[in-house]
Amino acid sequence: MKQTIVARRDLGMGAGKLAAQVAHASLSAVEDASDRARTRWQGEGQTKVVLGVDAEGELFELADAADAAGVPYAIVRDAGRTQLEPGTVTALAVGPARDDAVDRVTGDLPLY
Amino acid sequence: MKQTIVARRDLGMGAGKLAAQVAHASLSAVEDASDRARTRWQGEGQTKVVLGVDAEGELFELADAADAAGVPYAIVRDAGRTQLEPGTVTALAVGPARDDAVDRVTGDLPLY
Repeated sequence: MKQTIVARRDLGMGAGKLAAQVAHASLSAVEDASDRARTRWQGEGQTKVVLGVDAEGELFELADAADAAGVPYAIVRDAGRTQLEPGTVTALAVGPARDDAVDRVTGDLPLY
Repeated sequence: MKQTIVARRDLGMGAGKLAAQVAHASLSAVEDASDRARTRWQGEGQTKVVLGVDAEGELFELADAADAAGVPYAIVRDAGRTQLEPGTVTALAVGPARDDAVDRVTGDLPLY
């Protein structure tokens, strides 16, 4: 079981800002997951891997793929109070789900 | 309502590594919070702020302060599969709780 969180590298977010967006995406996708998936993932150490893309469009394509695969996911839009314009899409979390299911959605992406 | 996540700057974590540790801390502290606190925080947009310290000892002192104040918190130790030694303490999440309660614990810290 694992969760990947895909964040945009093209926004030039600071490290703390990035971390907050990733945490927001992670938590939102966990809420979208079944109790069973969440419990199994947590029992295995709640593995999280942060990956990168370079354009907003890629996040939406990955979200569509997660949706089609029946994998829990969540897209984050920033409230825009600091650094970014309001509504900027910053990150997508995929899972928690089985490793192979998550890899079918985000397996080709590089680490952030 | 807000949550702060305090991470160690002295470890030289890469941005993706930092983000995963912050997400782990955030989620763990949310699980430590009451249903009421969690629901209120989420209803207000689940504000998260990432702060920095420069030594492990500071995290433990802040955790003690959160514990004494009755504020939910969680400390993260890295599993050590990448970048860090196993068991390295990397981050502490404080809240979700009322802004003033969180500020009494982490209000003097700089942004990460």
